[in-house]
Amino acid sequence: MSLPILKAIGIIHSPYQQPQDTPIQSSRSTAEGWVEVFPEYAEGLEGIEGFSHLILLYVWHRAPSEVCLKVKPFLADFETGLFATRFPCRPNPIGISVVRLLERQGNRLHIHGVDVLDGTPLVDIKPYVPEFDVFSPERVGWYEQVK
Amino acid sequence: MSLPILKAIGIIHSPYQQPQDTPIQSSRSTAEGWVEVFPEYAEGLEGIEGFSHLILLYVWHRAPSEVCLKVKPFLADFETGLFATRFPCRPNPIGISVVRLLERQGNRLHIHGVDVLDGTPLVDIKPYVPEFDVFSPERVGWYEQVK
Repeated sequence: MSLPILKAIGIIHSPYQQPQDTPIQSSRSTAEGWVEVFPEYAEGLEGIEGFSHLILLYVWHRAPSEVCLKVKPFLADFETGLFATRFPCRPNPIGISVVRLLERQGNRLHIHGVDVLDGTPLVDIKPYVPEFDVFSPERVGWYEQVK
Repeated sequence: MSLPILKAIGIIHSPYQQPQDTPIQSSRSTAEGWVEVFPEYAEGLEGIEGFSHLILLYVWHRAPSEVCLKVKPFLADFETGLFATRFPCRPNPIGISVVRLLERQGNRLHIHGVDVLDGTPLVDIKPYVPEFDVFSPERVGWYEQVK
């Protein structure tokens, strides 16, 4: 089955120019940034200002292109499977981050909690809705040992 | 900037054969299903059995290919922007669902809370970790009016 080619719908602007500078997760970032949605998709932003939190989907455009199926998590001294982690070296290098929407200015979104490199290609925005997105896991695998 | 072509890393098996049968969200689904990860990616599943909840990224392979920038949300009598909704008619037709992992059997994951069509192409699996994924939005836009 052939799947679509990803297309950028915008660009994420952040204070981070180098991979080693980016926070581990958006939940640990206090940085502000801007999501610039290309004009041809701006109509799709109507009503988004009503949501305080957004899910951004983007491409790790500067991650190495090779896939690593086993990785050593941050702060860990052991390896685990890639799909049990958030590492970027994935078959489909798509990252997700939840950010706070501070303000919408036309096709530009001022956000808090940005954790990606400046210039990151945006591929989707979805509203964060607790009824759909909040779960209470009993188990978080290897993460229990490092957090 | 050219972005990658999505590639299936597996297939999601569910009880749903027709779009109108699928639940609105995984959080409202009590259906069980199986995630079959292709053998070449199976090594990446090591350690995933430690997590009770997983985020699945997949392609809405049977959604209409045209993009609709304004949509009428389920149960609503008004239109809003596409990016303020979870509708599939997106520039990049990628869906995300959080499911409960019941059991791993090799490269097959038995899941609860499946809300996608049988045969849906899987493009990524990420572990659900409350520190990264749980937020407390103050505002959920139009959703306030229909929930």
